[in-house]
Amino acid sequence: MSRVFTSQANKLIGKSAVFSGWAQTVRRMGKLVFINLRDKDGLLQITCSPDIEKTYETARKVRPEFVIQVKGKIVERDQKNINPDMATGKVEVSVEKLTIISESETPPFEIVNEERQASEEIRLQYRYLDLRHERMKQNLVVRHQAIHFIRNYLNNEGFIEIQTPILSKSTPEGARDYLVPSRIHKGKFFALPQSPQQYKQLLMVAGFERYFQIAPCFRDEAARADRSPGEFYQIDIEMAFVEQEDILKLSENLFSAMIKEVFPNKKIPQTPWPRLTHAEVMKKYGTDKPDLRKDKKDKDELAFAWIIDFPLFTKQSQEDYFHGSGNKLAPSHHMFTAPKKEDIPLLESSPEQVRAYQHDLVLNGFEVGGGSIRIHQPEIQNKVFDIIGFSKDQKKQFRHLMTAFKYGVPPHGGIAPGVERILMAIMGEKSVKEIMAFPMTGEARDPMMGAPSKVAPAQLRELGIKIDKEDK
Amino acid sequence: MSRVFTSQANKLIGKSAVFSGWAQTVRRMGKLVFINLRDKDGLLQITCSPDIEKTYETARKVRPEFVIQVKGKIVERDQKNINPDMATGKVEVSVEKLTIISESETPPFEIVNEERQASEEIRLQYRYLDLRHERMKQNLVVRHQAIHFIRNYLNNEGFIEIQTPILSKSTPEGARDYLVPSRIHKGKFFALPQSPQQYKQLLMVAGFERYFQIAPCFRDEAARADRSPGEFYQIDIEMAFVEQEDILKLSENLFSAMIKEVFPNKKIPQTPWPRLTHAEVMKKYGTDKPDLRKDKKDKDELAFAWIIDFPLFTKQSQEDYFHGSGNKLAPSHHMFTAPKKEDIPLLESSPEQVRAYQHDLVLNGFEVGGGSIRIHQPEIQNKVFDIIGFSKDQKKQFRHLMTAFKYGVPPHGGIAPGVERILMAIMGEKSVKEIMAFPMTGEARDPMMGAPSKVAPAQLRELGIKIDKEDK
Repeated sequence: MSRVFTSQANKLIGKSAVFSGWAQTVRRMGKLVFINLRDKDGLLQITCSPDIEKTYETARKVRPEFVIQVKGKIVERDQKNINPDMATGKVEVSVEKLTIISESETPPFEIVNEERQASEEIRLQYRYLDLRHERMKQNLVVRHQAIHFIRNYLNNEGFIEIQTPILSKSTPEGARDYLVPSRIHKGKFFALPQSPQQYKQLLMVAGFERYFQIAPCFRDEAARADRSPGEFYQIDIEMAFVEQEDILKLSENLFSAMIKEVFPNKKIPQTPWPRLTHAEVMKKYGTDKPDLRKDKKDKDELAFAWIIDFPLFTKQSQEDYFHGSGNKLAPSHHMFTAPKKEDIPLLESSPEQVRAYQHDLVLNGFEVGGGSIRIHQPEIQNKVFDIIGFSKDQKKQFRHLMTAFKYGVPPHGGIAPGVERILMAIMGEKSVKEIMAFPMTGEARDPMMGAPSKVAPAQLRELGIKIDKEDK
Repeated sequence: MSRVFTSQANKLIGKSAVFSGWAQTVRRMGKLVFINLRDKDGLLQITCSPDIEKTYETARKVRPEFVIQVKGKIVERDQKNINPDMATGKVEVSVEKLTIISESETPPFEIVNEERQASEEIRLQYRYLDLRHERMKQNLVVRHQAIHFIRNYLNNEGFIEIQTPILSKSTPEGARDYLVPSRIHKGKFFALPQSPQQYKQLLMVAGFERYFQIAPCFRDEAARADRSPGEFYQIDIEMAFVEQEDILKLSENLFSAMIKEVFPNKKIPQTPWPRLTHAEVMKKYGTDKPDLRKDKKDKDELAFAWIIDFPLFTKQSQEDYFHGSGNKLAPSHHMFTAPKKEDIPLLESSPEQVRAYQHDLVLNGFEVGGGSIRIHQPEIQNKVFDIIGFSKDQKKQFRHLMTAFKYGVPPHGGIAPGVERILMAIMGEKSVKEIMAFPMTGEARDPMMGAPSKVAPAQLRELGIKIDKEDK
């Protein structure tokens, strides 16, 4: 007899079946043992009576989180025992055979009652137990559903997904790179991409006019509520022969459709999404990510807005960590963002007044995605490099892009909403970590695996590197 | 007037439309200029006559690979000018307005005639031009279609896709790790995962009974025809409460359905796929990846086979680079593979005779995927660690897994076919590089980006590392 899932129980009344899963709770009532069996789909009550002697003996040994297999008959519960809070609350399994597959020690925190769970450190150390909580499981299921919907939507719109390299090159793009020493070319390093920015632009040059990728991105930055240290995922979209309007429309249609399908309870009161210029929003709200909800207590309200007409340049700050740039100005979005056509003449005379074809997507006060029309004229790209103070050597690091632009480059642009960020904002979670399977702590550690860790001296020798400074 | 794609031209006879793309070829015949315009969907002939003076002047300036926009009327070609080799060969565009969007220097190799293309070095250096070749474009489109089909299939079977960390921990798993120095924890390193092996097993402990991921994997190994140096993608599938039979059936159904949909011309002559034991296949073919095609000249024949009953252990070799293990025996698959139930007693007395629940998927003489039922009993896992000669310290590196197994672990197993490998074998390509957007050379370099590269001394200082040995 092959196994069925708890979600199928309601349709199997009167039949015998095999179920497998975890004992979520074990209760004894009189002579009966009741176990709530949990599998990937949900819960199901199983009842062991002393009439089936050997099974009853085994059932009495079961403790919470034991893995068990049960064979039994699915029967309707008595009217008074119906549990309306449980999807399978009208039925139960009358057990004929129960097998303990594997035992469990007492978990470091409760699985049933999430309120009683532990510190972040302990949750992450035992993440495989933390993920057993219904809310955490649902978060990952919903993350899958949202991404899956987005992939199908973009595929139907003629986009193709292309995986770009993760072992890439270090370029001064606005955040710290993670470096990877090369064993074969000692003294040289790969870098993990801060985003697939240059690759997607090169794919536009290659003629893939509609690209997307659920792309891993890496920034060695301090943790924030809306950014986990280390890695995060981006819904990376790029199109050729488009204007800003096309990108905004596609994004608005995509996310509206996704929310309707995956989050049917959520409401987007204002459509089309309001568009506010940067100047306007700063003046009116004093921030470029205003929370435009009508009722901030309504947890189902999603107030999207577009912020446009950003200044192309901003004052360089330490926090930006725009290493490489030597001038007072740094790109507001990134150095590949195109100036508005009518402002190009100002690049020479007053660059700080130039506005950009940049668009930020804001949701309930969070910036959940940004994008732009890109520069496709080598001379303008070069001008921008000059304005942000790039040296000859620094410019050289982008030679591949400048060379590519000599062989027929289409106008192009895109957007890259953050997977965890937009889901965090939609779901009202407090941190992006709640939507990741195995996030790091705020101090960029994984307490479960014990990463980062010391490595064997032989490994470093092979890579031709040495530890220069070591933390305790 | 908004832009339409060349694929729509056949349906627009008699209408005016705007097309954008690259000038693939430019010919002058008498007083007319003919341009084959290429966009993401294909080619379309446009005809410029001297009657429209200004446009004609512009058209005479167009050279191959210029990016242009044309507005014109779609008309039927004269009977004698119909091109049956072209999807749009019955129509052409009579141009009213032509604009040059960006110019192109003469490319380093021909885009039209792929036979005349250059060395691998030059192809990869100008990959954005190499990808303009019809074959290369199609390879990436088909890769997308295959992966997209697989995702939908698995989603419909109740699997969810979960992204596991890329900044992970170095453990002795059979190949060289890429290391990533930690800035915050100086002297310590992350490692890029050789596969999500441990994470997916932990997800089974967490109760996600049906997991998959199109997962990036990283191995610092020498290049082979069927493995590009650096990174590759795996169709990573793991299930709880299953036996080997379930995994084989799911895989066979999945890939049969994918091939039927994405590669309708391909034939799988033998179904169900033959299953051969390792002993049998070695005796009969002298290899564990036999090419079972009936007609090796038939480029559409796909001869799949399962190889099972591998020995659990194999002699340790230098090539395996199983660093960490100190004994004569190394795992044949990996150290988490379960011994066959009936062979468990042999673990103590004659481990070399123990057979494993390992399954390799072979296609036309290539190993395209491997998997196994995993060990879920801590005492057996510990025994395997002992047999391969792990020290106490080495065992400690897997403590998270051994701890997890104390809290209710379900039996589980899976398979992980290589994306590039299986597509290479199906498509009959000579190298996995032909199915990747931006592969590295055999010497693990990216000539386009110039990676790996030297980095700023300040970057190394921040990471607390020093270059010890430098190649010229």
